[in-house]
Amino acid sequence: MKKAIALGVITLSLATTAIAQVKPEDQIKYRQAGYSFMAWNMGKIKANLEGEFNAKQVEAAANAIAGIANSGMGALYGPGTDKDIGSVKTRVKPELFTDKAEVGKVATAFNAAANDLAKAAATGDKAAVKKAFSDTGAACKGCHDKFRQE
Amino acid sequence: MKKAIALGVITLSLATTAIAQVKPEDQIKYRQAGYSFMAWNMGKIKANLEGEFNAKQVEAAANAIAGIANSGMGALYGPGTDKDIGSVKTRVKPELFTDKAEVGKVATAFNAAANDLAKAAATGDKAAVKKAFSDTGAACKGCHDKFRQE
Repeated sequence: MKKAIALGVITLSLATTAIAQVKPEDQIKYRQAGYSFMAWNMGKIKANLEGEFNAKQVEAAANAIAGIANSGMGALYGPGTDKDIGSVKTRVKPELFTDKAEVGKVATAFNAAANDLAKAAATGDKAAVKKAFSDTGAACKGCHDKFRQE
Repeated sequence: MKKAIALGVITLSLATTAIAQVKPEDQIKYRQAGYSFMAWNMGKIKANLEGEFNAKQVEAAANAIAGIANSGMGALYGPGTDKDIGSVKTRVKPELFTDKAEVGKVATAFNAAANDLAKAAATGDKAAVKKAFSDTGAACKGCHDKFRQE
């Protein structure tokens, strides 16, 4: 848990290095790609919890989610990415760019949950995965409720 | 290397479980999201190799790429995903759905390269990352050349 939180902090601190050259419209596309790919993998874990539990598939899905969660997506919320850019639409709320304390809190919570999910998946224990999956879903929702428009 | 190849094979073998319910147009969107997010992370590693080398950022990027590569993306090439579906466009060539042997070869090569990149990144050694990054780029290109339209 401590390690997971540390990773969350690292992720946020990576936001400003080496990648400033990504165009705002591409930042929006990349962050949406990350969330979309995590959603697919959350869906797979859900299907495994509700049906036949394939531990290898669940582990692979959880590792994809954790890898994306830890990749420093904060860098994809740079200047100019708070509004639609041409055909590139975003549902982000303005508060994400102003309420740094709350963003840090939900981002750290999400990273911790994603890392716990990967750890649970590595054990192959369905009950542990179920709990960690539920926590990760709650962390997703925590950010959506605060920082994503309907 | 052996482990990486084994993972590649596992990834391919996961293609048919639990996730058949994803709609063809969503399969196309999810696979494009995965490639897009990997591209962002490849770009970050490239920037780190060409400029200041931030080992933590490189490791996080490589882990995201490996997590996505190992997630069983073969499942996102189901029936009906070989052509555009309404506004959802795809550049996949028909050969991807017929030449299973070659698909297995390029997919396994890509997984092996992505796992080697994650291993190199974990060492923090820039020269090792440079080599593994180049190999991963070549594996990306190997599939693009064969199975992606211009």
